[in-house]
Amino acid sequence: MRYDIAVIGAGPAGLSAALNAAVRRKQVLLVGSAESSNKVLKAEVIDNYLGMPNVSGEEMAQAFLSHVKKFEEFIDIKKDHVDDVYAMGDYFALNCREHQMIEATAVILATGVGVSKMIPGEEAYLGKGVGYCATCDAALYKDKEVVVVGMNHEAIEDTNFIAEYASKTTFINRTGQDVVLNDGIEVIKAQPKAIEGDSHARTLVLNTGRIDADGIFIIRDAKNADQLVPGLATEGAHVPVNRSMETNIAGMYAVGDLTGAPYQISKAVGEGHVAALAAAKYVSAQGRK
Amino acid sequence: MRYDIAVIGAGPAGLSAALNAAVRRKQVLLVGSAESSNKVLKAEVIDNYLGMPNVSGEEMAQAFLSHVKKFEEFIDIKKDHVDDVYAMGDYFALNCREHQMIEATAVILATGVGVSKMIPGEEAYLGKGVGYCATCDAALYKDKEVVVVGMNHEAIEDTNFIAEYASKTTFINRTGQDVVLNDGIEVIKAQPKAIEGDSHARTLVLNTGRIDADGIFIIRDAKNADQLVPGLATEGAHVPVNRSMETNIAGMYAVGDLTGAPYQISKAVGEGHVAALAAAKYVSAQGRK
Repeated sequence: MRYDIAVIGAGPAGLSAALNAAVRRKQVLLVGSAESSNKVLKAEVIDNYLGMPNVSGEEMAQAFLSHVKKFEEFIDIKKDHVDDVYAMGDYFALNCREHQMIEATAVILATGVGVSKMIPGEEAYLGKGVGYCATCDAALYKDKEVVVVGMNHEAIEDTNFIAEYASKTTFINRTGQDVVLNDGIEVIKAQPKAIEGDSHARTLVLNTGRIDADGIFIIRDAKNADQLVPGLATEGAHVPVNRSMETNIAGMYAVGDLTGAPYQISKAVGEGHVAALAAAKYVSAQGRK
Repeated sequence: MRYDIAVIGAGPAGLSAALNAAVRRKQVLLVGSAESSNKVLKAEVIDNYLGMPNVSGEEMAQAFLSHVKKFEEFIDIKKDHVDDVYAMGDYFALNCREHQMIEATAVILATGVGVSKMIPGEEAYLGKGVGYCATCDAALYKDKEVVVVGMNHEAIEDTNFIAEYASKTTFINRTGQDVVLNDGIEVIKAQPKAIEGDSHARTLVLNTGRIDADGIFIIRDAKNADQLVPGLATEGAHVPVNRSMETNIAGMYAVGDLTGAPYQISKAVGEGHVAALAAAKYVSAQGRK
């Protein structure tokens, strides 16, 4: 089965996109790593979304999700990570961690922008001993000492891979769970405080001490959109769009924080709506080809 | 007193703009010919504004307005017609029918787009015997016969002016009220059904009969935005904006239906929010000059 429209991300932008695509009677996949945006959930009070005065983030998330669930005839909600999205010409293939390959005629990206705090020194030493991509850079550290700051489950596989090259591998466990890594990898529970060095990163400072290393990898969830979608035009962390929320790829739309500041719920909801109507039109036109 | 931000129009876009400018603690004038959008009020059921499932237009208008009124410390709501907006350099002057000249540092246009139905034949004969502007065209009909379809109070003054030129002037009263016009002007209560002619308009067809005329004027409320704001760039009935909702005039923003399709509440609310933040930033920068 091929969905008409796949919406990636279940924050306000994604929910509004799914809702309005369903109103247009399109078959929608709504896929996100969580059912609601953490940014919304964590808000104590929200008072700037017109018509819903003075609500908690939880109340708002609940109201948004239950509105979408009214349209379940048209919307499949799947909790999953989307690792890659491939533009295949007249459809898209979503490589999902749990549900494997899923196809859709149009895609609306509502993945937000990463807001995890950087470690002091991280930006300055990026490319100078600090890296994000184990697959790309592990070989640089053959017979050298590496520290991995692991903030998600992917980091485990990455670290096992790095350890095939490195002479010594240390895993700073920030996943929030106990982890099991390959033999020889030291696992430490501690909080990274800073990255220090000279012209090159040399030391990861923890709340419990210091670890010298030739390379420091930081593995966290936020993936830039062009890593998610090969060929997608981006400007830094953002995806440029026109007034119909179209990206540079036909049939692909971007909405919400991903399209740039201001990072506001009503902007996200409005953009989700606009993209849903544009995508619905695109899908109908594809059907007539 | 000069307002920080004047918002013209009290539909969803204008209300969201006023709300969010107030959240940023700007002094706001919200001026509209009605307290709520008629388009919203007349909607039987609205189910595509995320978080407010299945509400009537009246319920939504009420929820929107009461949210805005929570911020009355920062928002003056005035019911008035704005006839002209003049860009004076570092501020704007609003020529209002009841409240005369009002000044504001920034202006957010949320006036919507005209939706009054055209009379069949109106578009085809526009400029060929059919006109909208009495001031511009009355002299063309010196010693000729003219019919005016008058849909608002302004039409009365316009018709009296036309009658100074025309040999015969007939006023089709569509104002919804009794009217008094200058001597010699015939007033008819009837419904326009069509405009007919050859290469030029010749006849206004009414539900009660036909009137032959050399010129037919149609006077209704919808004023294109460039008539409201001299120098404003427009594309037809719409105002082109960038992603910050800026128009071609510094300090002036456009939001909602005025910026183009899709004509949707959530788009309007989101754009109002974006413009409010951009205008607040503009006002603060002006203050530092």
